[in-house]
Amino acid sequence: MRPYANKLRLNRRSLLAGLTGAAVTAQTSAAQDGLMPWMQTLGDGDLPYGLPGPRVANVVRRPAADSPGFEIWHTPLEHLRGTITPNGLHFAVHHNGIPDIDPAAHRLVIHGMVARPLSFDLNSLARYPLVTRTAFIECAGNSATNAVSPWARDMTLGDVSGQISAAEWTGIPLRILFDEAGIDPAATWVIAEGADGGRHMRSLPLRPLVAEGMLALYQNGEPLRPSQGYPMRILMPGWEGNAQIKWLHRLELADRPAWSKDESGLYADPLANGKLRMMSLAMSVKSVITAPSGQQVIAPGPRQIEGLAWSGRGRIARVELSIDDGRTWTEARLQAPVQPKALTRFSLPWDWHNERAILMSRATDETGDMQPTRDIWHDTFAGHSFNHFNAIQAWSINRSGEVKNHYA
Amino acid sequence: MRPYANKLRLNRRSLLAGLTGAAVTAQTSAAQDGLMPWMQTLGDGDLPYGLPGPRVANVVRRPAADSPGFEIWHTPLEHLRGTITPNGLHFAVHHNGIPDIDPAAHRLVIHGMVARPLSFDLNSLARYPLVTRTAFIECAGNSATNAVSPWARDMTLGDVSGQISAAEWTGIPLRILFDEAGIDPAATWVIAEGADGGRHMRSLPLRPLVAEGMLALYQNGEPLRPSQGYPMRILMPGWEGNAQIKWLHRLELADRPAWSKDESGLYADPLANGKLRMMSLAMSVKSVITAPSGQQVIAPGPRQIEGLAWSGRGRIARVELSIDDGRTWTEARLQAPVQPKALTRFSLPWDWHNERAILMSRATDETGDMQPTRDIWHDTFAGHSFNHFNAIQAWSINRSGEVKNHYA
Repeated sequence: MRPYANKLRLNRRSLLAGLTGAAVTAQTSAAQDGLMPWMQTLGDGDLPYGLPGPRVANVVRRPAADSPGFEIWHTPLEHLRGTITPNGLHFAVHHNGIPDIDPAAHRLVIHGMVARPLSFDLNSLARYPLVTRTAFIECAGNSATNAVSPWARDMTLGDVSGQISAAEWTGIPLRILFDEAGIDPAATWVIAEGADGGRHMRSLPLRPLVAEGMLALYQNGEPLRPSQGYPMRILMPGWEGNAQIKWLHRLELADRPAWSKDESGLYADPLANGKLRMMSLAMSVKSVITAPSGQQVIAPGPRQIEGLAWSGRGRIARVELSIDDGRTWTEARLQAPVQPKALTRFSLPWDWHNERAILMSRATDETGDMQPTRDIWHDTFAGHSFNHFNAIQAWSINRSGEVKNHYA
Repeated sequence: MRPYANKLRLNRRSLLAGLTGAAVTAQTSAAQDGLMPWMQTLGDGDLPYGLPGPRVANVVRRPAADSPGFEIWHTPLEHLRGTITPNGLHFAVHHNGIPDIDPAAHRLVIHGMVARPLSFDLNSLARYPLVTRTAFIECAGNSATNAVSPWARDMTLGDVSGQISAAEWTGIPLRILFDEAGIDPAATWVIAEGADGGRHMRSLPLRPLVAEGMLALYQNGEPLRPSQGYPMRILMPGWEGNAQIKWLHRLELADRPAWSKDESGLYADPLANGKLRMMSLAMSVKSVITAPSGQQVIAPGPRQIEGLAWSGRGRIARVELSIDDGRTWTEARLQAPVQPKALTRFSLPWDWHNERAILMSRATDETGDMQPTRDIWHDTFAGHSFNHFNAIQAWSINRSGEVKNHYA
């Protein structure tokens, strides 16, 4: 890994490299700016539940599918900063629309291989201890465009990879509820089902759920949104989104998976060797550059390359950046605290002056796992595979500063 | 500090004390619940910017003042969990309404005792490195009700103490912008002014701003809301809310404070000894019990006592709980990670069976500072003082489980 700060001005030694002394601001002799119109009038009032302002009306999700009941909403990653996603912009996929669940009538049943089948309503759940944890959720099919559609060059980052979001989740450790029911020692699987119109269902291995699973009731401080599973969902940090059953109403303890239709179909990964990888729940190490990113036009001068990295297997250990199509790499700064199975923001100053560039980010997690190239990813999976795409993603920048999706 | 788990069943040895074996759930012989109406139909779609569901329409802020332009919105702390506040529920105080600022026309000017007066627009600021930090903001007048209105027994926690919220803030360290302008070594103060109709202004000591101040541009991942200062505000973790100037348009370096009207009036604290405490910017250690809390009615059986603690001077070191009017105290569990100048959630199991109780929480921060009693607080401040009220707050619970604000 050879930094080449002199040649292309990518530099991690100083956060301000290239900025100090650069004429990024106009000098002014006036002590202050003029009396703008909004300083000459009484402002508006607020709302009981506040909303984003009219000046950021472009910071919204766009639906990526719109057949009845089946919607995919992508988080507009290119407009956001920091490490959590506001609830109104969290990505969402629902196969049968969003059910309007009466919280007074909703029950969570724990049954199957248990000593005591139990039924919980919201009042009984409210007696249990809560824990809080920040975690990302990523759809197994996130970035599928880059796996199967090499013609999709004119897309924003949100369009390409916006099925990843993060939040501070609060709920009851599943371990506590399992203990209440008394799990049969022979049980190894949990069949979890949602109360939506399609009763979305997955078989999940018991042991990791006991270690890290949560019955999530709150997201970023407030009760779950309907599109995120109100009144309750599974949160299992690091696993693909479809496993984190929303509108959860049933947990059946068993000694084998259900092998439901999607588990041997949509959620299985056809490999290049003809085999089928199943129950591939953990999302692998991945990163995206959020700025500069697709459909933006950058101006010459100093700036920050910024992005997000994450791994379903633990903490991000490092992120490297390249501006020359992967020939050389420089380590980026990581924003502390680096939390496991959460989003980690990285950045690095860059002084750009109309040269062609191909930007890439490459993350490595604490297990030593590093993002593969797109070619290596394709060598592993069948040609039509699109789940669990975590290959290095690239943006090309031309001499005019136009940023496009680039296939490495 | 003597735990008295046997007598009143307040117990920190086990998170589940009192729960295990308690009939909090009905046993069921059915493997699952019935097919509810929402499982028999296609659900609704979502919105580009998602909103809370209709089932939690009570989770809103209520305005505590409504003269034209002067609004106070309290966070409904009793409905929230976790450690951050959704942007739509962040407390807000504005003295002259919310200005509708054109981001293309807005400028931040740094002038006064500097080598180079500078004017920044949003495009130039976008070139600078960003940092991210979780911090609470509390109004200096939060909980004023408990300082001056001993008749206010029938109030929710949000009504009493809802002028405290927390968020993940992202922006540019002020130090970097000051370095660009070149601060005169003789400068010791910064006069910060907002671009609202009243040009809200405060004098702030320079050194702490250099160490920890941020020009905040994003809140919980998205651009600042108008009511929180869009397009930019000061974030200075730990200081009272009125110092964190919203709609910031001017930073003037000086060698003395401006001593504006509010700085010698509204924001000064009359003491019992006849003197006036001024520039009391840091908020002291404080805590509130969120559950059970005012206007709730609790049912017998095991439950968690939960709450929030914070200090403007660093991390929370410990929180103690009392259920007998402060005669005995038991240490509560703190939710990790405990971050400085952020909200820390605490909890402790409690098995209640219709006995009268007076609940109190008492926080201590890492500097050793501990919340005073209400009597001690009143001994320090003048009778009509209401800012910086951080005394121990109490809830009384009668035999029917009704929770009321109680003056210790």
